[in-house]
Amino acid sequence: MPQEIRLNAFDMACVGHIQHGMWTHPRDTSANYNTLEHWLGLARLLERGLFDGLFLADVLGVYDVLDGSPDAALRGAVQVPLLDPAMIVPAMAAVTSQLGFGITANLSYETPYLFARRMTTLDHLTNGRIGWNIVTGYLDSAARAMGLGRQMAHDDRYDMADEYMEVVYRLWEESWADDAVRRDAAAGVFTDPSRVRRIRHEGKQFRLDAAHLCEPSPQRTPVLYQAGASSRGMVFAAKHAECVFLNGGPAPDVAKQVAALRALAAPRPIRVFVGATLVMGRTRAEAEEKLAEYRRHSSVEGALAHAAASLGIDFGRYGMDEPIEAGPGNAIQSNVAAMKRATGPRFTKRGLIDQFILGSRQKPMVGSVQEIADRLVAYVEETGVDGFNLSRTVFPECLVEVVDQLVPALQERGAYKTAYAPGTYREKLFGAARLTDPHPAALARG
Amino acid sequence: MPQEIRLNAFDMACVGHIQHGMWTHPRDTSANYNTLEHWLGLARLLERGLFDGLFLADVLGVYDVLDGSPDAALRGAVQVPLLDPAMIVPAMAAVTSQLGFGITANLSYETPYLFARRMTTLDHLTNGRIGWNIVTGYLDSAARAMGLGRQMAHDDRYDMADEYMEVVYRLWEESWADDAVRRDAAAGVFTDPSRVRRIRHEGKQFRLDAAHLCEPSPQRTPVLYQAGASSRGMVFAAKHAECVFLNGGPAPDVAKQVAALRALAAPRPIRVFVGATLVMGRTRAEAEEKLAEYRRHSSVEGALAHAAASLGIDFGRYGMDEPIEAGPGNAIQSNVAAMKRATGPRFTKRGLIDQFILGSRQKPMVGSVQEIADRLVAYVEETGVDGFNLSRTVFPECLVEVVDQLVPALQERGAYKTAYAPGTYREKLFGAARLTDPHPAALARG
Repeated sequence: MPQEIRLNAFDMACVGHIQHGMWTHPRDTSANYNTLEHWLGLARLLERGLFDGLFLADVLGVYDVLDGSPDAALRGAVQVPLLDPAMIVPAMAAVTSQLGFGITANLSYETPYLFARRMTTLDHLTNGRIGWNIVTGYLDSAARAMGLGRQMAHDDRYDMADEYMEVVYRLWEESWADDAVRRDAAAGVFTDPSRVRRIRHEGKQFRLDAAHLCEPSPQRTPVLYQAGASSRGMVFAAKHAECVFLNGGPAPDVAKQVAALRALAAPRPIRVFVGATLVMGRTRAEAEEKLAEYRRHSSVEGALAHAAASLGIDFGRYGMDEPIEAGPGNAIQSNVAAMKRATGPRFTKRGLIDQFILGSRQKPMVGSVQEIADRLVAYVEETGVDGFNLSRTVFPECLVEVVDQLVPALQERGAYKTAYAPGTYREKLFGAARLTDPHPAALARG
Repeated sequence: MPQEIRLNAFDMACVGHIQHGMWTHPRDTSANYNTLEHWLGLARLLERGLFDGLFLADVLGVYDVLDGSPDAALRGAVQVPLLDPAMIVPAMAAVTSQLGFGITANLSYETPYLFARRMTTLDHLTNGRIGWNIVTGYLDSAARAMGLGRQMAHDDRYDMADEYMEVVYRLWEESWADDAVRRDAAAGVFTDPSRVRRIRHEGKQFRLDAAHLCEPSPQRTPVLYQAGASSRGMVFAAKHAECVFLNGGPAPDVAKQVAALRALAAPRPIRVFVGATLVMGRTRAEAEEKLAEYRRHSSVEGALAHAAASLGIDFGRYGMDEPIEAGPGNAIQSNVAAMKRATGPRFTKRGLIDQFILGSRQKPMVGSVQEIADRLVAYVEETGVDGFNLSRTVFPECLVEVVDQLVPALQERGAYKTAYAPGTYREKLFGAARLTDPHPAALARG
């Protein structure tokens, strides 16, 4: 019996997310990202396909590294304009009952007190279906938007994040005891004050002296996602993350990453999701044809604008075949390493552009539905990952195909659930309602 | 023909809002405040009743002035536990198409850049049905929760708010030109970069150097609500607010306030809503009976905890008939003045408690449906207000009665619309889509 494969949709509240240019395809509807109908339709589709979750990326700031300007990003709708992902979730929760929601939120610019309330609110309204993808951000443009000169250095951001987590854990887990809320109308007692604790924190970065504003939600702490793949990021993930999102790549590399991560986190279990882009057809030929058709809409400029920002390299300053020197700038460190691995000695603009297949560096899996099903099953076996974060190409057809064709093919192989497990998002993922020792959230509970 | 009366529901994402203790009534369902169903039902009900809007209050921090402790507030569910009101709105928007949403948000603790994106997101998702009740907060407990020692002084908060408004107006109105977004798939141009402006602001309190992350929403700037009734608050309201919320009181007093406010704001129109609590029956006797029944569930302790915080006076330190000295603490200044007017020479704890009818200082209007309809029509005539913010007693019956009985009675009198006006929230309220000169948001547009 093959291992169960879990699927998340990987999306973002904007037009162009990973595969840039796809919005120009006549059947693509991602330009409707600013309507509720768009998101309600997506949520219903994913729940029909028994997806574990919808993973929503976010970024503060714009991609203005290429040519030192946001122009290419704006022209190509490269993650700009961009809405607040948290706001989309309550509406999607109203038309679903099982789908989880993983929201990316940057902890650099919101006070723990307010942020903790926002997440608890979402966890109440979704009846325990909220996850949080913890990010610290990496764009100087975001720092300037907040009134700061530039980002904190990479490792300092993680130190700050550690302290932030400590504070929000205390608000979520320690402040209100399980039996604090009585709802006793006869006695006129809603909450027993003796069971609510004021949290006092005086740290290097944060101070707080308050009880949490909310009563405990079904999960208390949301399911914690993390995607940092640098060495400091891995340490952070091993300490805090319940699910980790990896960019993907050749199976042996990913297997090594997964093993290293699990060794660091042990004995805590970690679910690993790997990014994937699928281009399927009923036959392989049909899939290849579809790829060719999609490619005609892909945007090199968009992909370059995105890559320049995430690598911290202004490709506008290089000729096509000039060797590129990656500085220690504020970029996603693991992306730079991954790109160097991928391009090898040809770390040039042309070397990068040659990797863009569908308007991004993420290589699509192309094949018939049956081939893709087999490859996903094999990939999971070879790497030990738990599932995939599927990014979109031409929307919504790319996901409709997954729900209508790939999911049944995986189910035939015994590699995909035929019904949701009961309970909260955490219960569905781990069979447990609460974080347990040695997770620091459990320690905060005391 | 009488003037049209507009109705908002005045609510809060918590159990006890204004009339404390009502949650203990066997027919009251406000303890379901943490479920989506609760809010979806409310939204559908209000739209059926052609309410202009749902006005959602918010407060950061807890009421811990009485006896220097939050215990009474916690016991009585006096605005604690409390969810984030903004999160409830997208779900309600999904089941309505006309109802407006006025969200209270405190500008003291969120960066203009992030807050502006949040509101623009909501305005997109609701298709232009968002309003913002601008508050600066007044609780020291909130400041401590944010890591500050105590609140800024009253007038300083308003100066900071003025600067905050300047920044968000520029993000909402100036950053993206009307023709910036082209959505031109054939040309591969989503946004014309030459029509997006980076906003640079270097002020006393805020710095920002960024374009707005979002494309323009239907209203751009949300409909602006304000409730400050102090003299500095009135100046702020006259400059910024499109709608003002007054606490209410005797008609001649309110008429004076309305006239003063309109004179300050002229030539800008201002819609004024006044807080009201209704207890109705088919007959006056039935209404009186209902009041008596409700009163058996009202909470003096809850009302006192709330009043202590909003007046900045620890009533626990006074005997029942001891004269009270109100200090210049961080309280809602206009509330202190109003209470002194109401109690006259008997500014004592007993004097205050005598004013609590239904667990609050807000005096209910009690009468038959026809009597109440007549009184509302007369009150509007005498004061010049545009309508009422109806706070809840026993929920949902208090609002079901309004929709099923009071609204038809007002319609019979020609004092209530029989269908929604088309367009956005602002269009419904003012017949205009955009703020115009001399409103500072229009000036920011340039």
